[in-house]
Amino acid sequence: MQKILVGIVMGSDSDLPVMKDAAAVLDELGVASEVVIASAHRVPDKTADYARTAAERGLAVIIAGAGGAAHLPGVMAAHTPLPVIGVPVKSGALNGVDALYAIVQMPSGVPVATVGINGAKNAGILAAQIIGAANPEVRRRVVAFKEKLARQVKEKDALLAELGVEGYLNKLG
Amino acid sequence: MQKILVGIVMGSDSDLPVMKDAAAVLDELGVASEVVIASAHRVPDKTADYARTAAERGLAVIIAGAGGAAHLPGVMAAHTPLPVIGVPVKSGALNGVDALYAIVQMPSGVPVATVGINGAKNAGILAAQIIGAANPEVRRRVVAFKEKLARQVKEKDALLAELGVEGYLNKLG
Amino acid sequence: MQKILVGIVMGSDSDLPVMKDAAAVLDELGVASEVVIASAHRVPDKTADYARTAAERGLAVIIAGAGGAAHLPGVMAAHTPLPVIGVPVKSGALNGVDALYAIVQMPSGVPVATVGINGAKNAGILAAQIIGAANPEVRRRVVAFKEKLARQVKEKDALLAELGVEGYLNKLG
Amino acid sequence: MQKILVGIVMGSDSDLPVMKDAAAVLDELGVASEVVIASAHRVPDKTADYARTAAERGLAVIIAGAGGAAHLPGVMAAHTPLPVIGVPVKSGALNGVDALYAIVQMPSGVPVATVGINGAKNAGILAAQIIGAANPEVRRRVVAFKEKLARQVKEKDALLAELGVEGYLNKLG
Amino acid sequence: MQKILVGIVMGSDSDLPVMKDAAAVLDELGVASEVVIASAHRVPDKTADYARTAAERGLAVIIAGAGGAAHLPGVMAAHTPLPVIGVPVKSGALNGVDALYAIVQMPSGVPVATVGINGAKNAGILAAQIIGAANPEVRRRVVAFKEKLARQVKEKDALLAELGVEGYLNKLG
Amino acid sequence: MQKILVGIVMGSDSDLPVMKDAAAVLDELGVASEVVIASAHRVPDKTADYARTAAERGLAVIIAGAGGAAHLPGVMAAHTPLPVIGVPVKSGALNGVDALYAIVQMPSGVPVATVGINGAKNAGILAAQIIGAANPEVRRRVVAFKEKLARQVKEKDALLAELGVEGYLNKLG
Amino acid sequence: MQKILVGIVMGSDSDLPVMKDAAAVLDELGVASEVVIASAHRVPDKTADYARTAAERGLAVIIAGAGGAAHLPGVMAAHTPLPVIGVPVKSGALNGVDALYAIVQMPSGVPVATVGINGAKNAGILAAQIIGAANPEVRRRVVAFKEKLARQVKEKDALLAELGVEGYLNKLG
Amino acid sequence: MQKILVGIVMGSDSDLPVMKDAAAVLDELGVASEVVIASAHRVPDKTADYARTAAERGLAVIIAGAGGAAHLPGVMAAHTPLPVIGVPVKSGALNGVDALYAIVQMPSGVPVATVGINGAKNAGILAAQIIGAANPEVRRRVVAFKEKLARQVKEKDALLAELGVEGYLNKLG
Repeated sequence: MQKILVGIVMGSDSDLPVMKDAAAVLDELGVASEVVIASAHRVPDKTADYARTAAERGLAVIIAGAGGAAHLPGVMAAHTPLPVIGVPVKSGALNGVDALYAIVQMPSGVPVATVGINGAKNAGILAAQIIGAANPEVRRRVVAFKEKLARQVKEKDALLAELGVEGYLNKLG
Repeated sequence: MQKILVGIVMGSDSDLPVMKDAAAVLDELGVASEVVIASAHRVPDKTADYARTAAERGLAVIIAGAGGAAHLPGVMAAHTPLPVIGVPVKSGALNGVDALYAIVQMPSGVPVATVGINGAKNAGILAAQIIGAANPEVRRRVVAFKEKLARQVKEKDALLAELGVEGYLNKLG
Repeated sequence: MQKILVGIVMGSDSDLPVMKDAAAVLDELGVASEVVIASAHRVPDKTADYARTAAERGLAVIIAGAGGAAHLPGVMAAHTPLPVIGVPVKSGALNGVDALYAIVQMPSGVPVATVGINGAKNAGILAAQIIGAANPEVRRRVVAFKEKLARQVKEKDALLAELGVEGYLNKLG
Repeated sequence: MQKILVGIVMGSDSDLPVMKDAAAVLDELGVASEVVIASAHRVPDKTADYARTAAERGLAVIIAGAGGAAHLPGVMAAHTPLPVIGVPVKSGALNGVDALYAIVQMPSGVPVATVGINGAKNAGILAAQIIGAANPEVRRRVVAFKEKLARQVKEKDALLAELGVEGYLNKLG
Repeated sequence: MQKILVGIVMGSDSDLPVMKDAAAVLDELGVASEVVIASAHRVPDKTADYARTAAERGLAVIIAGAGGAAHLPGVMAAHTPLPVIGVPVKSGALNGVDALYAIVQMPSGVPVATVGINGAKNAGILAAQIIGAANPEVRRRVVAFKEKLARQVKEKDALLAELGVEGYLNKLG
Repeated sequence: MQKILVGIVMGSDSDLPVMKDAAAVLDELGVASEVVIASAHRVPDKTADYARTAAERGLAVIIAGAGGAAHLPGVMAAHTPLPVIGVPVKSGALNGVDALYAIVQMPSGVPVATVGINGAKNAGILAAQIIGAANPEVRRRVVAFKEKLARQVKEKDALLAELGVEGYLNKLG
Repeated sequence: MQKILVGIVMGSDSDLPVMKDAAAVLDELGVASEVVIASAHRVPDKTADYARTAAERGLAVIIAGAGGAAHLPGVMAAHTPLPVIGVPVKSGALNGVDALYAIVQMPSGVPVATVGINGAKNAGILAAQIIGAANPEVRRRVVAFKEKLARQVKEKDALLAELGVEGYLNKLG
Repeated sequence: MQKILVGIVMGSDSDLPVMKDAAAVLDELGVASEVVIASAHRVPDKTADYARTAAERGLAVIIAGAGGAAHLPGVMAAHTPLPVIGVPVKSGALNGVDALYAIVQMPSGVPVATVGINGAKNAGILAAQIIGAANPEVRRRVVAFKEKLARQVKEKDALLAELGVEGYLNKLG
């Protein structure tokens, strides 16, 4: 069994359909992760404990996702020297702009590495890139992942050239 | 010496020129307060302790002000059953909109009573209104305060009628 | 029959599906409330009267919800020394941002305790916290309510640990 | 002495340096006006009275300017069948966007004729256009005013053609 | 046959489902209107002609609605001394904020009386108020209209008091 | 004397300090231009005429700059088959966002080629690129201009490498 | 077979349902185009090559569409002296405002001719206008296209006059 | 001489007064960095080369700062498997919101770790945290840095308690 390197934390189980993409891409990149529900506002002590003990438990990166007044990533960052990746989750009337601002605009001294709104997959890739900064095997997998993305774009472009716009859209339809 | 009923907390001493207005208006309304610096991100445990022990120390209301990804009011609210008033402080490139969203859009179960950007004076008045909900003496002072405001508007209007627009602006000049 | 402590006012019956959450959570917290329709623009005198007489009728808190150019909470606050909680209701093209700004940005001297867009449940909890500031029984119920929220988060987290992401989502599905 | 046709109302004397432009342009267009300070929040009854009696006192139009959670124009409109022109005044952290939304997004049944942020001069012209809709003399002055504006643009364009960009800017400098 | 006093102009027939509310409420208020499609960008000369001849044809007010880069109301205002009411129509990715800004932020000298996004009904009421400023019969109908609105609110409030929240929502449901 | 290929139009002489950059860069790129003041709202007929006759007078591109409810570029585009470049000018409370939306969000059929807020220099370069699409000499000058920009960046980077951050900032200081 | 003058590039095949409108209108205007998928982030070298060789392959204009952090148009513009038209594609939580800002706010020296969000049809028309600046045949087709638009508006207006609002909407319905 | 682990890249030397804070805090944390000017739009090939060769030259993290349509961080991320930290730089009419959106909203597959607007110091700390994820010595320095921040907050709070609000502000004054 692989050592867990990334903790994926979310404020509510309503964030799970978004945040599961982080776990899935980390799995694809061969990085073990755990998924946890821990609200900064409803169970603040449990949440602080999770962050405070993350480094000694061997985690290398924490990914935290939340919507609205999204404090979870910042609270995590307050309690750990590990890099914390924040995922603003789209929810409510402001469509995630509130979460984006509440995550990215951290005060001096306590950064959160913010990805786009609902960008959980990118959070997972970023976590792998961070681990890959000192782990050649993981970095190689990131390189391969990027090459796969490039191939897919090229294949789609070739298919479009072959089928034309109408044909391509019909095929997708 | 009066019992302290309101704790005024801010994330940084750079918020003090704004937040001092809360203390001043509470003083004017005869409500004793204390002013404290406690960052949700730099001293999270001290901050949690302050909120956790606020009720037993006899506080009735907490006012918390912060700028940017303003988590302080929400973190306070996570640790106390007391009403928490949040003051978004204008700072940085987003002019306080980030702080407003990060304070007002709290998740279900953990409200923060938010006032306008840089609205520390209104936070103090609101704290007095909350205390006045069960304290006739404080409520009477709130009523008197509102009457004073009304008188000032009427006096200005009378002066404007007397001096005309030019005269009034010259006098203010 | 319990004494009514909270008046829940809304500008239109189209706000009722949102605002009823305030009444429901107050009921759960053992605080009696009344629900009223009173527009600041269509029946301004009735609305002013409601606020002007609220304190003498024994109310301790007013909750007011409105959408668009949401003047109702501010108009309430103009006519009473009681704390007024404002609920911006999501409606129309601006999704409630107009209501949020029209409620939270009150002028100096007349605060409104603003909660998040559509945050009627939080408005109810905040009203209970305000009453609980001087009422130990209500405060105890607020504490119990927050403990229940914490238990729910912990149970969900335990279930997620047991079932895994796939299992958990299937169960919810 | 001319009959006063336009009431210019503002929420605070800090709005006077903006709102005086409405009075000035009405004077230029030969329409008599009065200037009044009346806050929707600090002197709500006086404010309601002003609007309620405006028609019988012979006013034809009310211009109301306010900043922040700008309720004054809407409160005026609630109490009168006269057309009410609203001027969002730039102030505070949101630069007048809050005032714009709080004025323009009025509920169905109670319109406010909104002009641009700090657009007090345009409010005065609009008031004259409204009066001119049934008053040929005032309409003729509006036509002449617009012709003067056109002439000024044409003179500037001719000067620019004569002096060139450098010369024109130096002359202005 | 009644004399047409209000021209209701829109940039595209896709605006008609919104703009027809202006015609309907004017009809209810006994003011005759005409409805016209005239794009500022696709038929600029026809559009300019419409505005240029509006006064001599006896119109008293023009209502113009458009979405996106909504130039129609401003172009109308450039060509007539009549008061022009602008209706920002919700459309496209920006939900009508683009139309609101493009209508309300007119330069000095050429005002547009802007109502809320999709506020065509309010535009009609405002047109009647403008006509009513010099026409006692129309003003009386505006007063009656406002009284009807007030009665409706009071009836709804009474029904809510009778049925309670559940009962009221079930009845609506 | 060179044939004028680009008309640079602005709504007000207050836009000249911004818009002159378009003329300057066109001069640098060897493309002759003329600078004109023509308001869409104050002199609508003159403005329409300018656009209507632009093609026959031999212009290839029109650059139009305006602030606020910036209709000038769209009005130009309504009257000419030539490509029209729009420059949103920063002014007033909304900092040019109003102008950006009022220029870029044109309806289907009548595009405006929009550049960034205050981007008059880029408008000039874009005009040269448009002319260069069919004029090898102008295109060659555009290529040389871009090479110069690249050289400047490389020289600055080399200087930074030589002087270090402190040294570089002191030199600039 | 006609020479291809316009390259239509998009960052992902999910943009194709929007971007195909550019190809369609260019076809209608008799201008040959090609459609290509090329991501600035996933196949950066292929993308740069496309732009770098566009001029020598005989293209006159590039149209590039992308959503989110839309870098494709700017990256194209970095590698070619040809005019580049950028289409912000609506996608994700920010509805295309992110794409608009990421395309239009280009730095000095490297303009992108930006059209409205999802404005692919207008991008095609603008490309034809650019080509028409030096090609009388294409310009004549643009003129005819605009005349057709004008006729359609006039026909709709005539139909509305004939059928009335109800009749017109029923016919559309 | 220490091995350089972090490349700090900016689009223009006008970003240097902001971006130098990243270099300074990395120096304080004992991590060697280099500072480079490389525009995604003016020297795209040099910029791509820098990113493409960063990993083999031994860099572990790239920090990229830019304003406006800030493409630099995303272009970096397109060309390297290393983690890229993006710093939106405040500039121009949109105050850095354009840069924030253009950096954070990256498409799936190519993340950028975004910090707050002008958050270069936090970018440096985040780079150290990323390196510290696998380097105990650097992580220890991060822990010490956070302890220092906490001490400073506590000292300020103690000083405020000692001097009172007036005294504290006078001392700062």
